[in-house]
Amino acid sequence: NQPSADKDASNKYLREFLVEFQPDQIRDHLRKFTQLPHLAGSEQNLKYAEQIQSEWQEFGLDSVEMVPYDVLLSYPNKSQPNYISIVDRLGSEVFNTSLAEPVPQGYEDVSDIVPPYSAYSAKGQPEGDLVYVNYGRTEDFFQLQREMGINVTGKIVIVRYGRIFRGNKVKNAMSAGAKGIIMFSDPADYWAAGVQPYPDGWNLPGGGAQRGNVLSLNGAGDPLTPGYPAKEYTFRLDTEDGIGLPSIPVHPIGFHDAVPLLQNMGGPIPPNNWKGGLNVSYRIGPGFTEEFRTQKVRMNIHTNNQVTRIYNVIGRIRGALEPDRYVILGGHRDAWVFGGIDPMSGAAVVHETVRSAGKLLSKGWNPQRSVIFASWDAEEFGLLGSTEWAEDNAKVLQERAVAYINADSAIEGMYTLRVDCTPSLHTKKEKKDFLYTRAGTKETTGPMIEMISKLGSGSDFEAYFIRLGIAAGRARYTKNKKTERYSSYPVYHSVYETFEIVEKFYDPTFRRLQAVAQVRGGLIFLLADSQVLPLSASQYAVSLKKYAQSIAQLAQKHPQEMERFGVSFDFLFSAVENFTLAATDFHKRLETINTVRVMNDQLMYLERAFIDPLGLPGRPFYRHVIFAPSSHNKYAGESFPGIYDALFDIENSSDPQESWKEVKRQISIAAFTVNAAAMTLTPPA
Amino acid sequence: NQPSADKDASNKYLREFLVEFQPDQIRDHLRKFTQLPHLAGSEQNLKYAEQIQSEWQEFGLDSVEMVPYDVLLSYPNKSQPNYISIVDRLGSEVFNTSLAEPVPQGYEDVSDIVPPYSAYSAKGQPEGDLVYVNYGRTEDFFQLQREMGINVTGKIVIVRYGRIFRGNKVKNAMSAGAKGIIMFSDPADYWAAGVQPYPDGWNLPGGGAQRGNVLSLNGAGDPLTPGYPAKEYTFRLDTEDGIGLPSIPVHPIGFHDAVPLLQNMGGPIPPNNWKGGLNVSYRIGPGFTEEFRTQKVRMNIHTNNQVTRIYNVIGRIRGALEPDRYVILGGHRDAWVFGGIDPMSGAAVVHETVRSAGKLLSKGWNPQRSVIFASWDAEEFGLLGSTEWAEDNAKVLQERAVAYINADSAIEGMYTLRVDCTPSLHTKKEKKDFLYTRAGTKETTGPMIEMISKLGSGSDFEAYFIRLGIAAGRARYTKNKKTERYSSYPVYHSVYETFEIVEKFYDPTFRRLQAVAQVRGGLIFLLADSQVLPLSASQYAVSLKKYAQSIAQLAQKHPQEMERFGVSFDFLFSAVENFTLAATDFHKRLETINTVRVMNDQLMYLERAFIDPLGLPGRPFYRHVIFAPSSHNKYAGESFPGIYDALFDIENSSDPQESWKEVKRQISIAAFTVNAAAMTLTPPA
Repeated sequence: NQPSADKDASNKYLREFLVEFQPDQIRDHLRKFTQLPHLAGSEQNLKYAEQIQSEWQEFGLDSVEMVPYDVLLSYPNKSQPNYISIVDRLGSEVFNTSLAEPVPQGYEDVSDIVPPYSAYSAKGQPEGDLVYVNYGRTEDFFQLQREMGINVTGKIVIVRYGRIFRGNKVKNAMSAGAKGIIMFSDPADYWAAGVQPYPDGWNLPGGGAQRGNVLSLNGAGDPLTPGYPAKEYTFRLDTEDGIGLPSIPVHPIGFHDAVPLLQNMGGPIPPNNWKGGLNVSYRIGPGFTEEFRTQKVRMNIHTNNQVTRIYNVIGRIRGALEPDRYVILGGHRDAWVFGGIDPMSGAAVVHETVRSAGKLLSKGWNPQRSVIFASWDAEEFGLLGSTEWAEDNAKVLQERAVAYINADSAIEGMYTLRVDCTPSLHTKKEKKDFLYTRAGTKETTGPMIEMISKLGSGSDFEAYFIRLGIAAGRARYTKNKKTERYSSYPVYHSVYETFEIVEKFYDPTFRRLQAVAQVRGGLIFLLADSQVLPLSASQYAVSLKKYAQSIAQLAQKHPQEMERFGVSFDFLFSAVENFTLAATDFHKRLETINTVRVMNDQLMYLERAFIDPLGLPGRPFYRHVIFAPSSHNKYAGESFPGIYDALFDIENSSDPQESWKEVKRQISIAAFTVNAAAMTLTPPA
Repeated sequence: NQPSADKDASNKYLREFLVEFQPDQIRDHLRKFTQLPHLAGSEQNLKYAEQIQSEWQEFGLDSVEMVPYDVLLSYPNKSQPNYISIVDRLGSEVFNTSLAEPVPQGYEDVSDIVPPYSAYSAKGQPEGDLVYVNYGRTEDFFQLQREMGINVTGKIVIVRYGRIFRGNKVKNAMSAGAKGIIMFSDPADYWAAGVQPYPDGWNLPGGGAQRGNVLSLNGAGDPLTPGYPAKEYTFRLDTEDGIGLPSIPVHPIGFHDAVPLLQNMGGPIPPNNWKGGLNVSYRIGPGFTEEFRTQKVRMNIHTNNQVTRIYNVIGRIRGALEPDRYVILGGHRDAWVFGGIDPMSGAAVVHETVRSAGKLLSKGWNPQRSVIFASWDAEEFGLLGSTEWAEDNAKVLQERAVAYINADSAIEGMYTLRVDCTPSLHTKKEKKDFLYTRAGTKETTGPMIEMISKLGSGSDFEAYFIRLGIAAGRARYTKNKKTERYSSYPVYHSVYETFEIVEKFYDPTFRRLQAVAQVRGGLIFLLADSQVLPLSASQYAVSLKKYAQSIAQLAQKHPQEMERFGVSFDFLFSAVENFTLAATDFHKRLETINTVRVMNDQLMYLERAFIDPLGLPGRPFYRHVIFAPSSHNKYAGESFPGIYDALFDIENSSDPQESWKEVKRQISIAAFTVNAAAMTLTPPA
């Protein structure tokens, strides 16, 4: 094993690395990269990329390159703004939604603030009656259609933001036959109690709205080049064949604009859990009350899709002993406007990590493995920069990548640190405690709450984790989910995500961002410089058991059908048992055996073992059998997603036999995959 | 680098290993395992498996296990034989084909000889007019329909065996609308000039017929468990949803039985290249001449599909230095009847290889890497044993397998050695010369003809090479293709494949089989025990360039369309150029650099780099972008199969724009894949 002298040296470097992270530096980085809007594909976002490239070079990385791709982006038409009208019987507009958010103080002279829009919306001017469908979830549409007997065919749907990914709302509306969809931020979902709207507090002003893409990509990356990097020579689908592009107009509004649309709606009174926080009745429609019956709603959407060049910045430190083993820290740079929180709070942390790593290199540190730092572009348009690079490098990454740590927004609340990661990273309690203590959470927020959750989707780790099967994790400062029930954070994707909202409210001392930097950076350090990889097969076993129990319990809601169709989880439990034994044996051998590279490879490839090259049903780029979002909500990370979706479909199935057959098929695939993963842990040959 | 002492020791062991292969031993193995019919799923084939397991253990392997799967097999119904009739207007049978082949001398008392049949044929008794469609190729059906204006809908098609895989003939007949298909062995395709029929020579007697499966699996393995191993707990498709099962009755006959069916056929006179070697006119039909107009043909097919247990035997030698690197020698054991040539001439060679390796182990040899020996089951039913094991072990093999050497029939002619392999195995001229000289071809057949070809498909290497991307090769004794034009060898898949046909005609001294053993065994030895893997990226570069030129030339048959639709191969040539440079650099570094494992991994994973996880269009289990069979002939290995198939489709396309778009898409995928493979060869980080 490693001589203890080396271990001591590595520990000394780790301490120096973490101590070097400085709140003032992070503040300066954040200030510097949030001055101007830097939407993906814009001149300014390229300028920031060039600045990052040059500073990373100065910090001392071995190489820093700019990697461009040409992907499909989507922008509002500058000469024909998007808005929604109420029109009278003559077609005259009696109400129009606002064309922009009120600009925050200090930014009045900034040009190029893109107004709120739904990227990749179809163009069009549909006109018709509104139907209110709560959050626009699968279950909301079923309730609407089955319990209330309301058909949205040819109607315009209005839903509130929250609970699920907006792209799923749009997909559901399309499936239900709607000809347009409006999404609004309801105070019930985007206001924290007792907090003032920005700039006096961190709540969303009534004139603010949430931008965002409305694709259903399922991990495909650039909609025109699924599976392949969007390079000069790459074959592109015709735009009408592009992956996940909605076929109906979509538009987001704030709650000030939502009131006129909602207040005169007629139709049934909604169930209580469909009522939001506005002073309106939340009636379902279709259309307005008798008095306003002749008024209709018209959407005016002129957004354009266009192939546009984007730029990733890729920096590298060459590993001293294992240059062919890569540890990756990546996060995006593109922002809807200023990106004060999303993503620059994270990008500032990455910048500081590179600075500190450069310092360490200058002191003689030579990490065992290679480290890659990435500043991704066009995350907001469907994780495009990170996915194209993953596609470009898939073969190399599949063989050589040890782990991927994601660095999107570093703060979404003021409560405590939150880590979402693959179970094999639930490891090294002593190291983790060290990182967390070092991260100073005790000093800043009182007792450290241990929050480790499943990885979901919706940020740049997706292609690495769910498509390629690379161990992955993320860390950020978060809210207290029990007491703070609003979705994400109130100003999410609005113009009010400024430097000032972080400096005034979220992290005045920049100690929270420092803590995040220390956890993200510390993980990278340990992954790059530990002789034995800090990954645990046993922790994976513990999680698999928990997930298997939980999914079996979900199925147990239907005991008669399980009996009738012969559905059993026994083989899954037995596979988990096989995995648990193999993991225990593996870690026992690891303590006594000297063939470290062989065993590190087994650890590195463990995550890969959960990849099914056939993908999940209908989703060829979501290939992780243990973790993927459900088909019904892109954001929520489900365990055993294939079984989960099959069980979800049971609820609404017209052919129970076929549906339960799919459940059985998915259980069999899960059992096979867990057994196969166990085999990767057994001693070779 | 490796101390020369080790190299010398390894060379000494190699010489001893090769010298140990003994003709008499090979003869004894072949004699022993061809006494009785041993169809997949039969008791006798399990007995041979047990015997192999126990002898491999005695020979000294570290472990030998029996690995069962439960797969869909297909057998004739013993109480309702399959045959074809000519029936008169009253439905009376005026001619019936024979129910079995005349049994060769010495085997009269053998039971369990399965009569000639088409495995997985649909059941049924279709009756109708015959249409003769030459070899049943895509181009034959087009010629029939377009030039001759003959529609086979509702007809029974009769085609001669040869040129393409029989499963493709069946698929083409189904697509054309036929309700049954008869395949016969024409003397033009199954007779060597001047040779007597067996037992006086090695030609096919008129009563002999070719058994074989008629699936269109495209690499899926067991039709009921595509993508997953057919274990106890595995979810199975309903048989009607099984992969590649034909929906029409199919039956094979010999040329004696073909004459009565063909001799009275009416309709147009055939083109010259549709005429075979029988004394009939080869008229196309439909149906018989005026005189016999009222006679119809009726097929009587009662073959059953049933899930049946099969057994692979897996033996292992644990590698001394790199136990997690596997070199595999595999070949099948199941035979249609005795398997004198197919597969036991190959299985005898594997048996002798294991015996010689065991001798070497007892002398102190410790190969650097692990070696796996496999006796596959149910190859004849669609490569089932090898594919299920590949599916079972896919994750481990993807990370650890260095190379797979296939060992099907070791002899199909008496001319010279033939090696089909991936280009990276076109390597080590001096080693190869050594093996070939050692293999004694000069002594036995005069000057050694260098025959190295592309790997096709149709044997057990398929899942390893085309699905998983493991470097692969095969070797056998072959005929002179220029002068011997018959398909495969005349008695192929008939009851006349006995021990005696090998002993009397193909290899009386068993020196040819010894030569094959030395080449197969020598390759395994070099792959397992060379410090630097005997694989060459530069040889791959040379082949890629040749293939790119050849596929571009094929497209150049349509210069106007290429111009009109903007089709260019420039990016493919530039990708090949990138690959060539990367390969040259790689081998230069390999001479000077000491990080052997890192570079061996790059060599090992080079083949993996050509795998596209999305598979070829419509064929998810054929994933190799450089090598796969064409969709139109399972057996022929094409280079750049995606582009090849797209170009093939141009010929018959009704929408040239869409078809050329697909050509462009495939060129783009090929260029991406070659570029990505080049990236895997560049220095890490």
